[in-house]
Amino acid sequence: MSLTAPLRGIVPPVCTPLDSQGEVDTASLARLVEHLIGGGVHGLFALGSTSEVAYLTDEQRATALKTVVDVTDGRVPVLAGVIDTTTARVIEHGRAAAALGADALVATAPFYTRTHGKEIAQHFRRLRAAVDLPLFAYDIPVSVHSKLSSALVRELAEDGTLAGLKDSSGDEGGLRRLIVELGGRDGRENGPAPRFSVLTGSELTVDAALLAGVDGVVPGIGNVDPAGYVRLYDAARAGDWEQAAKEQERLVQLFAMVDVGPEADMGRSSSALGSFKAALQLLGVIECGDTAFPQIQLSDESIALVSGFLRAAGLTPVR
Amino acid sequence: MSLTAPLRGIVPPVCTPLDSQGEVDTASLARLVEHLIGGGVHGLFALGSTSEVAYLTDEQRATALKTVVDVTDGRVPVLAGVIDTTTARVIEHGRAAAALGADALVATAPFYTRTHGKEIAQHFRRLRAAVDLPLFAYDIPVSVHSKLSSALVRELAEDGTLAGLKDSSGDEGGLRRLIVELGGRDGRENGPAPRFSVLTGSELTVDAALLAGVDGVVPGIGNVDPAGYVRLYDAARAGDWEQAAKEQERLVQLFAMVDVGPEADMGRSSSALGSFKAALQLLGVIECGDTAFPQIQLSDESIALVSGFLRAAGLTPVR
Amino acid sequence: MSLTAPLRGIVPPVCTPLDSQGEVDTASLARLVEHLIGGGVHGLFALGSTSEVAYLTDEQRATALKTVVDVTDGRVPVLAGVIDTTTARVIEHGRAAAALGADALVATAPFYTRTHGKEIAQHFRRLRAAVDLPLFAYDIPVSVHSKLSSALVRELAEDGTLAGLKDSSGDEGGLRRLIVELGGRDGRENGPAPRFSVLTGSELTVDAALLAGVDGVVPGIGNVDPAGYVRLYDAARAGDWEQAAKEQERLVQLFAMVDVGPEADMGRSSSALGSFKAALQLLGVIECGDTAFPQIQLSDESIALVSGFLRAAGLTPVR
Amino acid sequence: MSLTAPLRGIVPPVCTPLDSQGEVDTASLARLVEHLIGGGVHGLFALGSTSEVAYLTDEQRATALKTVVDVTDGRVPVLAGVIDTTTARVIEHGRAAAALGADALVATAPFYTRTHGKEIAQHFRRLRAAVDLPLFAYDIPVSVHSKLSSALVRELAEDGTLAGLKDSSGDEGGLRRLIVELGGRDGRENGPAPRFSVLTGSELTVDAALLAGVDGVVPGIGNVDPAGYVRLYDAARAGDWEQAAKEQERLVQLFAMVDVGPEADMGRSSSALGSFKAALQLLGVIECGDTAFPQIQLSDESIALVSGFLRAAGLTPVR
Repeated sequence: MSLTAPLRGIVPPVCTPLDSQGEVDTASLARLVEHLIGGGVHGLFALGSTSEVAYLTDEQRATALKTVVDVTDGRVPVLAGVIDTTTARVIEHGRAAAALGADALVATAPFYTRTHGKEIAQHFRRLRAAVDLPLFAYDIPVSVHSKLSSALVRELAEDGTLAGLKDSSGDEGGLRRLIVELGGRDGRENGPAPRFSVLTGSELTVDAALLAGVDGVVPGIGNVDPAGYVRLYDAARAGDWEQAAKEQERLVQLFAMVDVGPEADMGRSSSALGSFKAALQLLGVIECGDTAFPQIQLSDESIALVSGFLRAAGLTPVR
Repeated sequence: MSLTAPLRGIVPPVCTPLDSQGEVDTASLARLVEHLIGGGVHGLFALGSTSEVAYLTDEQRATALKTVVDVTDGRVPVLAGVIDTTTARVIEHGRAAAALGADALVATAPFYTRTHGKEIAQHFRRLRAAVDLPLFAYDIPVSVHSKLSSALVRELAEDGTLAGLKDSSGDEGGLRRLIVELGGRDGRENGPAPRFSVLTGSELTVDAALLAGVDGVVPGIGNVDPAGYVRLYDAARAGDWEQAAKEQERLVQLFAMVDVGPEADMGRSSSALGSFKAALQLLGVIECGDTAFPQIQLSDESIALVSGFLRAAGLTPVR
Repeated sequence: MSLTAPLRGIVPPVCTPLDSQGEVDTASLARLVEHLIGGGVHGLFALGSTSEVAYLTDEQRATALKTVVDVTDGRVPVLAGVIDTTTARVIEHGRAAAALGADALVATAPFYTRTHGKEIAQHFRRLRAAVDLPLFAYDIPVSVHSKLSSALVRELAEDGTLAGLKDSSGDEGGLRRLIVELGGRDGRENGPAPRFSVLTGSELTVDAALLAGVDGVVPGIGNVDPAGYVRLYDAARAGDWEQAAKEQERLVQLFAMVDVGPEADMGRSSSALGSFKAALQLLGVIECGDTAFPQIQLSDESIALVSGFLRAAGLTPVR
Repeated sequence: MSLTAPLRGIVPPVCTPLDSQGEVDTASLARLVEHLIGGGVHGLFALGSTSEVAYLTDEQRATALKTVVDVTDGRVPVLAGVIDTTTARVIEHGRAAAALGADALVATAPFYTRTHGKEIAQHFRRLRAAVDLPLFAYDIPVSVHSKLSSALVRELAEDGTLAGLKDSSGDEGGLRRLIVELGGRDGRENGPAPRFSVLTGSELTVDAALLAGVDGVVPGIGNVDPAGYVRLYDAARAGDWEQAAKEQERLVQLFAMVDVGPEADMGRSSSALGSFKAALQLLGVIECGDTAFPQIQLSDESIALVSGFLRAAGLTPVR
């Protein structure tokens, strides 16, 4: 499904179900894709941080992306993360994703090395030139330890390098400034980058982000409750901000599941991704809730807490 | 004006006008207070970061606070920052502020030293016990380099230590979680801390914060355009979120003035506070736009840029 | 004792003993000064971070400094920390310290506010002009969250603003570069700042720092074992680097006492300063080992661990 | 050359010369290996940060490693960096390196994802089990944004998971503590991990590190002047610390070349690696001084500055 207009709506980062050997469970992944599309989402983001892309070998990445593309079968656009340290390596992932049928690429700034704005600009430009797919910049300082400046994003938006931004920086004020600079919530189509799409990864303030004028949302916990985010989105698009805020509050309560893992015993990634996968397993969507090695697995006690969060949010565990 | 109910509304952090010798210009400060109250604000926050409290001697702090309290004369509550490294020093500022007639205190976690959640809890509890005024916790990691955890704020809210939170952390998702935990946007009065007041310092996303359920806002650039923030607040309270967002967009454009100082030549504080004071000077509210030593002063070129931002936002410079 | 030549040798940051009410225990402080001078140290640094300066009121700071100056009585130079957020406040501390008889001042870059190299330069220059005492720059990013650049220190060393640097940055490579730029270990007296004194606060690598060419050392744990650091210094000055390293290893083992406080329960400051004070109490130097509020006090179990570290290092507790 | 004893001596991280198309220039790399071995180094570290590993595709990595292994031909051990985000990907690099003849592996903690000590321990253990080669932990917080704790390194040293540590953390005090805990400079062979090798990447304080008891050194600028570092090492081993310090000072002056790139225009990596490669090109060792895309290339003016640094350090450019 080619991206001929700005991407809009709910675009969850698709979890990658693993079997007990740590290999991609394609049957579970197919069910997850159906769960998401059935929930009404407007696009899918494969091989993002929530997909545990950093833990997957190139072969596993290909298996996961191919599964998502094949099962989706053009019903919604599929964005593919091309996450690696620098340009040459990212281009290889980009070519692989294009060959597998991705509709767009999502790339971060260089990481591991210390980088600079001028380098980042060259990086995105060469990637765009090397792979003929719409390109989204993925601003995720918690992972890459640099922040994309507003000036850089604008420059790359205005010259057509970027089709959009996936903002996971948590800097809502900065994102608001960018939106205003691009023409504001009502004037983007007449602004300097009319086809540029602004997506937020800030899943706890989606009502606010939509009020501010973002085009779409990439909510990790949207794996668990895609229909909830779609309702939130529809309420906002209809101008029913009270209803949007109410739905957001329910999802904030559900999101608290990310803290079920005891802090002293496991990393943030282990706990949050573990809770999402445990929820999907409890809901019967995926077979096994394991996260990729070397993440620490949730205990049975933690999984029981996840079950409680699901019930409290009106979702019914089947196991 | 005693704080008998949760504080609500627009509560600007009051700039401290200085004369060309660097001393507090009380006549200008009096005009600024009238400018703010005339703009319809619901409270004033003296001796905060935007007041350049870190640059003022104890005597200058007293002069500034006394002026704000006297000129306000009970029309709105006056909150006083008690900014210092640790408890004993903060208590001294708190006693001075109480003697000068402040209605509430605003204190940060300890800084300069490396601290810990248990120490921070003791810090706020002893301060509350030592000075009989409502106490607001000031969460400002950019200055104190620690973040108040949601659990800590809840604990101190529920046991009555804190009357409120002034959140300048920029963590909008975390603030949303706190609000939900306290009962949500519609149920706070029946929640675990019914009289607790949540104020945000995130001046670029005020519409969003009000939608999320904050009680009030502490906007630095509210010094320049208090009436704009009051209009934004009123629209939100009336449920007119489209209008609130529109007003917010105008204020975001105005806020861009904080970048007029060339980055290579001056600190963020010099540039942002310098632009606020230049704007107040251009608007005829204060006599001299200087910031406190050793901040770098804005050039004439930068001041001309500020003037342009004012006109673009519909404010008319008189000089 | 006026500082007419570069300061050299062991200059411990003097702990501030408190009584059980949290007030400065001047009798214990006098004993501590004798303990240090008796150990052969070459100077004393009062009101530094290890002195808990950030926890002391202005009155307590004055009491502590006066006691150190009076008891020292000119036998070694006394440096006084003038720790506060920005210039005007620091100058007030500087004037107070000069009046109390300090031989030199030690000041950090501005903190709490976000600062800039140009502001820091102005800050040190105005402070030097306002108080007629030799001035040391205190580079302590862990507290003030900015790093003094090598270029800035050189500029202020060469123009006579600074008499020296107290480096607590932990950046040993950067310090080595500075020393080389100033003429190196053997040519400083013919270099661009012949009277500039480089002091390190890196107490675990003192042999290395002396080999690199530092003039002196400010070791926190020198409160506990001043004679050990003096032996280390003397060995280094005599060119007996094997002996210096051996002494350093013994002191590294002793230093491990800073970790006796359980990490989950207390801040780094509480644990490290608590262990120093517990050791001084166990050695009979000070009456009470309490650290200033709101630091968490060491448990009896932790104090017993400190006692073990003392014995292992050949120091004999008397309680 | 199998590593049957603790690795000791100078082990430069080998630069990866590129041609003007950005491909590995194996002829230049072969000359560089001869330059290093001819300088007397005791080992080679291929595919480290200084080798621009983060910029090389898997195929380029293989070409570079194969060239180093083949040219070295067993004269010194060759360590291979296996730099990737998490365990499964790192194991793939490890197997490739083993097949190409590496004598040992060097791996970091997981990056891009947020990790935890327990995960890091699992990561190193599984890697060690999967590839039968001695394993060095690479502590490089500036790249991976977590620090290996001393307790973790000790645990993995004592149970035989790790053959050594390559410390690029800059925390010299922490490294000193680790060495003391492992038995100190004179007692390591009787300590808890007798065959564990401690290598430092802190190239400006090598004399100090050797005095503290490190086994070896991994100096980036050792590419340019390997013989200088070997002289430094030999002086230290002979106990001639004055001579070691003198040699170190000369190398510190040479190292200043890393700052020739204008800060506003390029990243730290571009400037430092660019200066190393420019120096190797000027010395006639490699054909082309380009760094990998998207790093910014040094200007002719900057290269002229590098030439001046070489001459000042007694090295003679041939171009």
